[in-house]
Amino acid sequence: MHHRRSEAAFSSSKIHDMGSLELRSADSSPPRCEFKPLDPEEFRNQAHRMVDFIADYYKGIETYPVLSQVQPDYLRTCLPKTAPYLPESLENILTDVTEKIIPGMTHWLSPNFFAFFPATVSTAAFVGEMLCTSFNSVGFNWLASPAATELEMIVMDWLANMLKLPNSFMFSGTGGGVIQNTSSEAILVTLVAARDRMLHSCGAASIQKLVVYCSDQTHSTFTKAAKLAGISPHNVRSITTNLDTDFALSPVLVRSVVEADVMAGLVPFYLCATVGTTSTTAIDPLEQIADVATDYGLWMHVDAAYGGSACICPEFRHYLDGIERVDSLSLSPHKWLLSYLDCCCLWVKKPSSLMKALSTDPEYLRNKASESASVVDYKDWQVGTGRKFKSLRLWLVMRSYGVANLQSHIRSDVRMAKMFEGLVKSDPRFEIVVPRWFALVCFRLNPFSWASPGYTELLNRKLLEWVNSTGRVYMTHTIVGGMYVLRFAVGTTLTTEHHVAAAWKLIKEGADAILKGIRNC
Amino acid sequence: MHHRRSEAAFSSSKIHDMGSLELRSADSSPPRCEFKPLDPEEFRNQAHRMVDFIADYYKGIETYPVLSQVQPDYLRTCLPKTAPYLPESLENILTDVTEKIIPGMTHWLSPNFFAFFPATVSTAAFVGEMLCTSFNSVGFNWLASPAATELEMIVMDWLANMLKLPNSFMFSGTGGGVIQNTSSEAILVTLVAARDRMLHSCGAASIQKLVVYCSDQTHSTFTKAAKLAGISPHNVRSITTNLDTDFALSPVLVRSVVEADVMAGLVPFYLCATVGTTSTTAIDPLEQIADVATDYGLWMHVDAAYGGSACICPEFRHYLDGIERVDSLSLSPHKWLLSYLDCCCLWVKKPSSLMKALSTDPEYLRNKASESASVVDYKDWQVGTGRKFKSLRLWLVMRSYGVANLQSHIRSDVRMAKMFEGLVKSDPRFEIVVPRWFALVCFRLNPFSWASPGYTELLNRKLLEWVNSTGRVYMTHTIVGGMYVLRFAVGTTLTTEHHVAAAWKLIKEGADAILKGIRNC
Repeated sequence: MHHRRSEAAFSSSKIHDMGSLELRSADSSPPRCEFKPLDPEEFRNQAHRMVDFIADYYKGIETYPVLSQVQPDYLRTCLPKTAPYLPESLENILTDVTEKIIPGMTHWLSPNFFAFFPATVSTAAFVGEMLCTSFNSVGFNWLASPAATELEMIVMDWLANMLKLPNSFMFSGTGGGVIQNTSSEAILVTLVAARDRMLHSCGAASIQKLVVYCSDQTHSTFTKAAKLAGISPHNVRSITTNLDTDFALSPVLVRSVVEADVMAGLVPFYLCATVGTTSTTAIDPLEQIADVATDYGLWMHVDAAYGGSACICPEFRHYLDGIERVDSLSLSPHKWLLSYLDCCCLWVKKPSSLMKALSTDPEYLRNKASESASVVDYKDWQVGTGRKFKSLRLWLVMRSYGVANLQSHIRSDVRMAKMFEGLVKSDPRFEIVVPRWFALVCFRLNPFSWASPGYTELLNRKLLEWVNSTGRVYMTHTIVGGMYVLRFAVGTTLTTEHHVAAAWKLIKEGADAILKGIRNC
Repeated sequence: MHHRRSEAAFSSSKIHDMGSLELRSADSSPPRCEFKPLDPEEFRNQAHRMVDFIADYYKGIETYPVLSQVQPDYLRTCLPKTAPYLPESLENILTDVTEKIIPGMTHWLSPNFFAFFPATVSTAAFVGEMLCTSFNSVGFNWLASPAATELEMIVMDWLANMLKLPNSFMFSGTGGGVIQNTSSEAILVTLVAARDRMLHSCGAASIQKLVVYCSDQTHSTFTKAAKLAGISPHNVRSITTNLDTDFALSPVLVRSVVEADVMAGLVPFYLCATVGTTSTTAIDPLEQIADVATDYGLWMHVDAAYGGSACICPEFRHYLDGIERVDSLSLSPHKWLLSYLDCCCLWVKKPSSLMKALSTDPEYLRNKASESASVVDYKDWQVGTGRKFKSLRLWLVMRSYGVANLQSHIRSDVRMAKMFEGLVKSDPRFEIVVPRWFALVCFRLNPFSWASPGYTELLNRKLLEWVNSTGRVYMTHTIVGGMYVLRFAVGTTLTTEHHVAAAWKLIKEGADAILKGIRNC
């Protein structure tokens, strides 16, 4: 079902139509048409056209190389140096998208994308985002769009419920949640709240003494957020993990590092644990780490950007055991809850800590509702002031699919990852490097008992390059405990068992080719 | 043109259809259908449905009260306490949007919205955003989606060209630009870059001595960003402005404040000037302030969030005179360049300063292109790691409309603001408070020569409340130099002269009613 209509039919509002037939027919100086950037009928037509373009892109997505094969600076030569003075038609632009943009894209939605963590999507989230965009409501405070604030509060409580979070994280209890763009912001705002709480009690001069804790597996954004918040890079303790704990934080080690800092006259104040690290989906033991955090008065944050979503399934919920003892938790539905970018949910036990650190009160935003303190003004929960009607996307996802389908979606990804794990195990040339907890399989080619670590790494680097250069599959690597590891992350929305099986076949082919190459040397 | 299709026709992928007619006809245990969150044809249908919903909303937008009239917590009672276990249809959800969400919205797109600054939109930006959403490409580095990075570089150069920025801000020259979500982030990342540059030369221990400068008219997010960056709140110099300079910064005063800090042993390092302040669109004199910044080695940032867009017209460009002497500039096309939220463009002269402060290098993101340093990795220009294909929206706007239409759009808003200014001046009971530079008119009711300032303020508060409570117009206020002022910001995409005239008529009615009320007391 296509909805194309000739461009000319709805372009009468534009300057470039001064020469069009209808206007030319009026002989003497045609009235200069007004520029109407949002004519509802033109909007309808062009948006329908775009829907078809996108649906067709989705339909044909497997025809593109997953990982773009272009060279740096490819696009500059394809496009003009300056913006056009006169309008161009949507059809022309879409032709450029097809011919110039798409070839330079790495297709994150491709079912053959197994890199990083997948960023999952869905029809419901897409239409939710359309609605969010269309309203363009700037809900910095309650009054600026009450529904935007209130729906976000409701949706955050809904998701908290799905995760069986304690009441202390819900608006219906004593806490509350907010949608941030990314985990980086969630970590930054909680860091700043914790920092200011600590500086309030020990004096502003202590800022150089403040220390934060994470593991060497914590997302790199943590160190960056600490730096943004003015914490000395020397005071970011990235605690070593190893294969013995499957790269999870050791509570004993955390305690000893914190103790050493206290002895040295420093001021520990924030600890970030992770449920599902980026490299290997390691899971830090929350309960035992919370003991340390409690003993030393640290703000404890849990970054569950990827792994947290799985906890809507009862069989995974135990990874959040101990969550009632932490100060804040973030997870990103744009990773595993079908939500498109950006969507990171942050819950805090004490919204007042965030507000103390982040509130502003300019005259031009003052209003009775805010002054009555009976409403939430989300600008005081985030980095910026303006914010979109962010909750619509998540609300559409939850309602359109229901908890049942969201759980089955998580389970299906995990099932496919298990299948891949089985395939890897069936080939003696390969090995699984760390246990698979969710839908990421960390493995490597390790066919020679005599090989040095460096040689094994080289083999795997070659294999990865071989696989990715085919354009048929995209996966990535990491290094943990000095080991170069291949990461196979299952779960783009369109991935099925068939894609996983085909990817494995390709990886085996790559291994064959590389090992044959070696024998021939 | 509507594209509805019965829900049942494309819902076979969902659990809730197990009981639907087609499936019931199969007698013995129907096959359990797989959950497919992104079936291209279901996507097509539902997205078409949403396009029509939105187009209809735009068509009928004048039928809603501009400012929502709901009471706090209105929504909680209208929606279930938890997410549904089973799916619901899009039609049900849209019914809720109409009946429960829309009544609680303040309609930013209404042509009768004259509050804050308008957040302008357009068909081109909408379809651009659809495209951006649909790709869901996470372009943290070049390789993760080369086209996303390269188009952003091109678009930033295009806009720099439209603004006649010097080469030192362009990729084609020696600088470069990046799309941030909001001005808050643009300010935060430049603050951190400047902070680290200064700490590098004077030692990390100096963080408590660092001082930043702005005016009492600078957006509140500046103080917040400074706080986020670990600058002591005592070291944020909010320099007083007054009516004599139309609330613009006085370079003489700036110099004396900076000098006093230096004398006191403090370390001045960052100055934020504004082109178009939030309260009154005051314009700080960039050239003369740059003299001070140069003399004291301050990083000078120009926040032109609102006013900057106007500078694509030659007749406004002089407000950016001196821009070649500053370190960074931000402006938000989501305000005045028809772009929907969020879109803030930031240009910097030395991208290396940003990168030094913000780069991360985790193993799992390493790749040859990044290591060759031949590409831009935008994660090192921003707060977070992940980022969308942000430039598509702006690219669609520039190409679909051309510079000609964008200029005419700015001029049309300014013309309407002038018209409103004329109407205000024609009524002796009212006065214009500060000069109108762009499309914001700052005025007040001031009918009595004998009235105290407090009494005049009361009259204007009453008038504002009267006007806004009608739901027919929404405008806001500010206080500058102790004066309570009404702000009439012209320029939502749908506003025409007719709406401006009607708003003025309503304001006059309000004044009549309030003054009559007084006479009757």
